[in-house]
Amino acid sequence: MAHTKTTRGNFFEDFRCGQVLRHGTPRTVSVGDQALYTALTGARFALHSSAVFARALGLSDAPLDDLLVFHMVFGKTVPDVSRNAVANLGYGTCVFGAPVFAGDTLSALSTVIGLRENSSAKTGVVHVRTEGVNQRGETVLNYIRWVMVNKRDPGAPAPDPVVPQVPDSVAAGELVVPAGLDLSAYDTSAAGAPHLWDDYAPGERIDHMDAMTIEEAEHQMATRLYQNTAQVHFDLLAAKDGRFGRRIVYGGHIISLARALSFNGLANAFRIAAINAGRHVAPSFAGDTIHAWSEVLDKIPLPGRADVGALRVRTIATKDRPCADFPLTDAQGKAHPAVVLDLDYTVLMPRRRDDPARGSPNAVRI
Amino acid sequence: MAHTKTTRGNFFEDFRCGQVLRHGTPRTVSVGDQALYTALTGARFALHSSAVFARALGLSDAPLDDLLVFHMVFGKTVPDVSRNAVANLGYGTCVFGAPVFAGDTLSALSTVIGLRENSSAKTGVVHVRTEGVNQRGETVLNYIRWVMVNKRDPGAPAPDPVVPQVPDSVAAGELVVPAGLDLSAYDTSAAGAPHLWDDYAPGERIDHMDAMTIEEAEHQMATRLYQNTAQVHFDLLAAKDGRFGRRIVYGGHIISLARALSFNGLANAFRIAAINAGRHVAPSFAGDTIHAWSEVLDKIPLPGRADVGALRVRTIATKDRPCADFPLTDAQGKAHPAVVLDLDYTVLMPRRRDDPARGSPNAVRI
Amino acid sequence: MAHTKTTRGNFFEDFRCGQVLRHGTPRTVSVGDQALYTALTGARFALHSSAVFARALGLSDAPLDDLLVFHMVFGKTVPDVSRNAVANLGYGTCVFGAPVFAGDTLSALSTVIGLRENSSAKTGVVHVRTEGVNQRGETVLNYIRWVMVNKRDPGAPAPDPVVPQVPDSVAAGELVVPAGLDLSAYDTSAAGAPHLWDDYAPGERIDHMDAMTIEEAEHQMATRLYQNTAQVHFDLLAAKDGRFGRRIVYGGHIISLARALSFNGLANAFRIAAINAGRHVAPSFAGDTIHAWSEVLDKIPLPGRADVGALRVRTIATKDRPCADFPLTDAQGKAHPAVVLDLDYTVLMPRRRDDPARGSPNAVRI
Repeated sequence: MAHTKTTRGNFFEDFRCGQVLRHGTPRTVSVGDQALYTALTGARFALHSSAVFARALGLSDAPLDDLLVFHMVFGKTVPDVSRNAVANLGYGTCVFGAPVFAGDTLSALSTVIGLRENSSAKTGVVHVRTEGVNQRGETVLNYIRWVMVNKRDPGAPAPDPVVPQVPDSVAAGELVVPAGLDLSAYDTSAAGAPHLWDDYAPGERIDHMDAMTIEEAEHQMATRLYQNTAQVHFDLLAAKDGRFGRRIVYGGHIISLARALSFNGLANAFRIAAINAGRHVAPSFAGDTIHAWSEVLDKIPLPGRADVGALRVRTIATKDRPCADFPLTDAQGKAHPAVVLDLDYTVLMPRRRDDPARGSPNAVRI
Repeated sequence: MAHTKTTRGNFFEDFRCGQVLRHGTPRTVSVGDQALYTALTGARFALHSSAVFARALGLSDAPLDDLLVFHMVFGKTVPDVSRNAVANLGYGTCVFGAPVFAGDTLSALSTVIGLRENSSAKTGVVHVRTEGVNQRGETVLNYIRWVMVNKRDPGAPAPDPVVPQVPDSVAAGELVVPAGLDLSAYDTSAAGAPHLWDDYAPGERIDHMDAMTIEEAEHQMATRLYQNTAQVHFDLLAAKDGRFGRRIVYGGHIISLARALSFNGLANAFRIAAINAGRHVAPSFAGDTIHAWSEVLDKIPLPGRADVGALRVRTIATKDRPCADFPLTDAQGKAHPAVVLDLDYTVLMPRRRDDPARGSPNAVRI
Repeated sequence: MAHTKTTRGNFFEDFRCGQVLRHGTPRTVSVGDQALYTALTGARFALHSSAVFARALGLSDAPLDDLLVFHMVFGKTVPDVSRNAVANLGYGTCVFGAPVFAGDTLSALSTVIGLRENSSAKTGVVHVRTEGVNQRGETVLNYIRWVMVNKRDPGAPAPDPVVPQVPDSVAAGELVVPAGLDLSAYDTSAAGAPHLWDDYAPGERIDHMDAMTIEEAEHQMATRLYQNTAQVHFDLLAAKDGRFGRRIVYGGHIISLARALSFNGLANAFRIAAINAGRHVAPSFAGDTIHAWSEVLDKIPLPGRADVGALRVRTIATKDRPCADFPLTDAQGKAHPAVVLDLDYTVLMPRRRDDPARGSPNAVRI
């Protein structure tokens, strides 16, 4: 009778296109989660740090960090989607919806939107669209992810291949500005830096300068906080016999560290509106020191808004390598060996009040 | 004048049968404590994770994890009971009472119910009954514990030996189903697994498969969160000269890890109703990877309840040893060298609605 | 265009006497912060642990730990004041004002009150007075700090030297007893020890006996919780080439550990009213085991209060060295090599009800 109650998770042949996976472990998020997120990542964007700051911008309270929401939703999908994953291949078109406040309860469901067996017949690629919702059914997050998953039985028949087209970015019209947000009282002094949307230019590169060394206890606590159960992050005994000989840091923790480091240079990027594409170029381990730099890819005015604009940003994180010279590729054009993360995302940033392109303040509220 | 204000704690000859110890440091528990508990242990039972889930079952909010409550109450007793303990010999007949919610304030008191000096005259065994109460005076926890405590003065006279009889389990009639709990809306999909009380059978063994490696910072943070001051968990300098040469992990942290790991196989065991008996078979240390397996000892219908039943479960935790073959004893019948915890406890689990033995749904509310 | 958005912080020549620095990152403090503070330091003073205890003394809720407030305010000043600091030279006349409760939002501003270039012309000493305020504009903390800061350009002209006089202690009349505080219901049993103000005498020395070993993850999490961005605590890669070859523990973490250890001997020192002077005698590192001892410097009756008095206390923390013999100086009168902290501060403590000097209970409320 052994094992019959234990979940080994889904293997490649368990997925069907159109299948809906309702993930377990709904989570009421709290100020305790936010405090831990701050302590584990060094996050310090004013909107998430201060209820007074948030209320001055028209919100009811300080929303939780956007990436904390991402990790909470992502974590719920692991037991069903990626317990038997060989590799996280990518994710894209991730839109952040309603802001999440302490007391909200998040749950997640995923729809299988693509399946393709690999030529080896040992693995296949599963594409899912995942939606995170709050207790009112409002979407807080929506993204596509594709992972390489083991087959339980290499002899199982291959499904008809379906590979969804994934746009390379989230369109401006799909970006969500939180309801009620009004940036006319935005306080750059409290936020910690004077640079606004108007001050950035496509092609501009920013070395975020600061660095953060990762400890095993830190990435384990972060990953457990998100109720992400992927064993590669927690099981040293098994990892000793694995490819790297040690536990791998949850890639999302690197994204959070890079975002926190990016405060120095992007302090007024008060909200992540979208992740266009993300790739974990190499694994990170405890003891690694993470640095980051960013390039502004695009400046996106938002329809009907003179108070806020969007910046498309590419942030590169490295390990054990400062970023003063913006490391990206080596002489052969391959990824620089120090690069661990290549993230293309879109942030919201206040526009300058005296920006002539901004128009009348009375016209901006929608 | 040195030392007069410093508490060295009670020695064996300081205890008297019938003595009541009112422990210090009342604690208002919070969502911050629950977030840390999740981050430190990987807990993910839906009842404690989601206020929406809890409210659908008739509770006012998500209660704190049962073991978090246990550790908070236990921690308060350490300065008075076990500061000078040589060994935690066991505990039993632990009943979980009123659920504990964020904002409740817990305090604890213990009554000495047994004393017996050891033949060496250097130590003795102290038995206490400890009660944890909330701010309304309701019992949240009640258990017996016995510890071996040093004498201050080996020449102090031995007390008349008193050794209480400890029942080997908590009787079904003593188990507390939280007031207002109604499982008719229990959502197995949100809880993360389909298996209910009806699906388990005595003798069934479950390998929980997952594993968790312990870091020093993690067990120290957990133990401090519980305001447990036992120095063996924190003082490396002293530990270097001790029996193990390093800090010992608080045994309760192992119980919490085993409980969290048991989710994979016992996801619907939504509440610990009792700990019948517990034994820390061997110490654990940072770097150990904990695995767990369980055996169903008994199925206990609850009087007047068709919606919920109790399972008596024995969970064995090991270190650096997977549990696929259910390690328990070696060839000589002694404890398997990898076993660190042997816990006999009783959980509540929803009963299947179409269980013919369950009776009419209208009859189950009491 | 690189670097233009990145803050390198202020160098010595960027400061002007009278200059006001309004620091970024306002922070709404929460029960999550308090839970982490407990888990990271072992704090267990009853006033901060229990809302029931706090309400019995006339407060609306359990205030956050005084040092948690100190670290939160201090952390905000780092990007503007001490990012380019060579050394923290000292701080003094630190007064704790309005108690801080979960939900309060803290912000900080500093005024430059002194500047003196060093003879090397490479560095200078900056004196600032920092004030922490809550969302109602009430002062929660006010202190002076002086740091040695690098010059950007050694050729920059030296300012006229200004060195403020710093009193060696906070006067009794400046100490703040929280509004509404009434100690007539103070419960020593809940607080964990019987010793009150009346029981201490100037010159009395107390070995706090307990010890705490520091882990990298712990001091990093604490320092990030305070949004303190000083890179020496986080960047192992840079530290490897530095003076110590490893990350330095934030000095404030040592203060918090010493305060938590001091519970054993000063359990009823329910509030820090002032820090008269503080000096980090030597740096601490992960792996160090911290001990502490205290000397009562003075007993200070508070005008118009028979229920509460102040004790001026000097607490010495050591690393890897128990304090049974009160280590302070070596044979040559220099600081004992194990000493890491020398803190002179003032605590509030209840006075004994039957103290003849206390007067009529009816007279004590003001």
